[in-house]
Amino acid sequence: MKLNQIFFFSMLIVASHSCMAQDIKEDFKPSVLNQPGQEYPQVNSQGYARFRIHAPGADSVKVSLGLGGRGGTLLKKGTDGFFDGTTEGPMDEGFHYYHVSIDGGIFNDPGTLNFYGSTRWESGIEIPAHDQDFYALKDVPHGDVVQVLFPSKTTNTARRAFVYTPPGYNKDANKRYPVLYLQHGWGEDETAWSNQGYANLIMDNLIAEGKTKPFIIVMTYGMTNTLRFGHMREFKIDTFQTVLTQELIPYIDTHFRTIANRENRAMAGLSMGGMETHLITLNKPEIFSQYALLSGGLYTPEELKDKPKPQLIFISCGSRENPERVRRAVDSLKQAGYNATGFVSENTAHEFLTWRRSLYQLAPLLFRNK
Amino acid sequence: MKLNQIFFFSMLIVASHSCMAQDIKEDFKPSVLNQPGQEYPQVNSQGYARFRIHAPGADSVKVSLGLGGRGGTLLKKGTDGFFDGTTEGPMDEGFHYYHVSIDGGIFNDPGTLNFYGSTRWESGIEIPAHDQDFYALKDVPHGDVVQVLFPSKTTNTARRAFVYTPPGYNKDANKRYPVLYLQHGWGEDETAWSNQGYANLIMDNLIAEGKTKPFIIVMTYGMTNTLRFGHMREFKIDTFQTVLTQELIPYIDTHFRTIANRENRAMAGLSMGGMETHLITLNKPEIFSQYALLSGGLYTPEELKDKPKPQLIFISCGSRENPERVRRAVDSLKQAGYNATGFVSENTAHEFLTWRRSLYQLAPLLFRNK
Repeated sequence: MKLNQIFFFSMLIVASHSCMAQDIKEDFKPSVLNQPGQEYPQVNSQGYARFRIHAPGADSVKVSLGLGGRGGTLLKKGTDGFFDGTTEGPMDEGFHYYHVSIDGGIFNDPGTLNFYGSTRWESGIEIPAHDQDFYALKDVPHGDVVQVLFPSKTTNTARRAFVYTPPGYNKDANKRYPVLYLQHGWGEDETAWSNQGYANLIMDNLIAEGKTKPFIIVMTYGMTNTLRFGHMREFKIDTFQTVLTQELIPYIDTHFRTIANRENRAMAGLSMGGMETHLITLNKPEIFSQYALLSGGLYTPEELKDKPKPQLIFISCGSRENPERVRRAVDSLKQAGYNATGFVSENTAHEFLTWRRSLYQLAPLLFRNK
Repeated sequence: MKLNQIFFFSMLIVASHSCMAQDIKEDFKPSVLNQPGQEYPQVNSQGYARFRIHAPGADSVKVSLGLGGRGGTLLKKGTDGFFDGTTEGPMDEGFHYYHVSIDGGIFNDPGTLNFYGSTRWESGIEIPAHDQDFYALKDVPHGDVVQVLFPSKTTNTARRAFVYTPPGYNKDANKRYPVLYLQHGWGEDETAWSNQGYANLIMDNLIAEGKTKPFIIVMTYGMTNTLRFGHMREFKIDTFQTVLTQELIPYIDTHFRTIANRENRAMAGLSMGGMETHLITLNKPEIFSQYALLSGGLYTPEELKDKPKPQLIFISCGSRENPERVRRAVDSLKQAGYNATGFVSENTAHEFLTWRRSLYQLAPLLFRNK
């Protein structure tokens, strides 16, 4: 797997694709991910981000986004105790993690909400995307996101999972649903897909428009973060595979109204969660029938043969990652007779807008068996 | 209401009750509220807290806990780029919010999880309490905490609530449950009672021991934070009362298996959430039959007469607040023929251990009507 390299280079690319000087429009508004009442950070209609940090006694304040100051944006000290600065160029649309260096120490921007990424709660900013409507909070029926604590003998504790149940789940006590197990990436945890990914809102909107079958989504921690970044070759899937297949799935199938069979069970993951999906679906093809890798590796016909045939394979990435590799893999799977679909998110890299769009494309394809 | 003063003075008292010099035991361990893998902050068996912050270029780093450095603990710069320091005295048992001043700017300690309080996501630290077992994560059946997005015409948006459903809720599709509406305090939001308050674990443990009837708890944002601190006299309850009674309650009663009548509906709140509980239960006594104020004011027989009689009134506070006032109010209510119970949390102030203990005392008293 070259996931770590893909991830690293994509991080560099995120904010660097447009370094052409242009007039900056002064239509900045607070980012939608700001804490209540906070005016900064702000974003303008071109995708520039502007930061404002109070640190009257500090000498140096740098934001990790934008490439203006060699790997970030160096803010300039004003006479009012605030440091101000704007990214040198526009940012990619969508969600970005960041942090602030105050005199060399790493802190979060007190203006923003925090999101778990790179094994810490980080600041987040949202550059409004031209297609943001598909994950907007709208006046449609909303599903729930249920925090469950399931017992795990393997790890000797109760573990947390979040379970999306579609609108109407609580109305008809006889209806049962298929289930997608959906994994986050390295450095993240079980909160990522609803906090950063808006998985629940994407589903609510798709269901309201009649574009997807309603199904349950289960999100738990993939135990991805004990290895330091760059050591992913050493990762062993065994423990998480046991937690998922022997502890979580039985818990979900007894506590929620699932259709508890292979045909109605899918697994998907982003980045390192894709690596986990790839390994587990190949090890346990009798459990899952539909597989999706979002910026998280490929399947080959060779590794799938002699196993129960998947009903669907979905592979995606951002256009700033390696879309040709995704296209070639999907072509190769199709030629070998598999039901494979590829998706490339335009003008995005290894980041959450790629994965929001991927889920939006994936959901309507799932569970189309009778 | 003198809630704001109570709150303010209690904040000062939190860390100041023991300023006697004593030998500090070197048995410090990471706080249980640290981010995964973070060694600092640490707490020792006496309740001292020790901080360690990386900020190599900073001149001044101060933590807002402890009274050593006039309203906080001033950390000392080492040669390794870290600032270190220990509170001058032991802290009260339980949960405390705090933040860090780096050269005059307010940030969070990157070592800890964040909790919404004082209208911002703050750092949190936990001083292990001698009675912490009642809110510990144990090997017992766990209920769920369900995030719902309910439509609100009054505020023209979908609003968030968290709904605790007890263990077994998903097993018997015919069983129905009473409901407690449980409010947070000023500066907090709908996340407080499960994140800081462990309401779900307190209930799981009580239910496992057969000490309380299983019931549903609903927690939503009390719209408490638009007024600045100190301006609470200007607070108008109308909008939240409408959201709660005309929008949230009907949503809960149609989406969860509640027993939808006055006898099986209670309201409780801490601090400013107590003020809201007091106002709403007096305005709408036909909706709720059981009332609880946790460090959040009192009821008098005068204001209750000529209204539908409450089945239970529960009033509590910490021993470092104004326990005599609570005791007098409860006596007065009892003399007037009300079913009133008082509770004083020993050696705590206006803080979450007071309220965890209050919920633990309150729950077994609720819904004991046949």
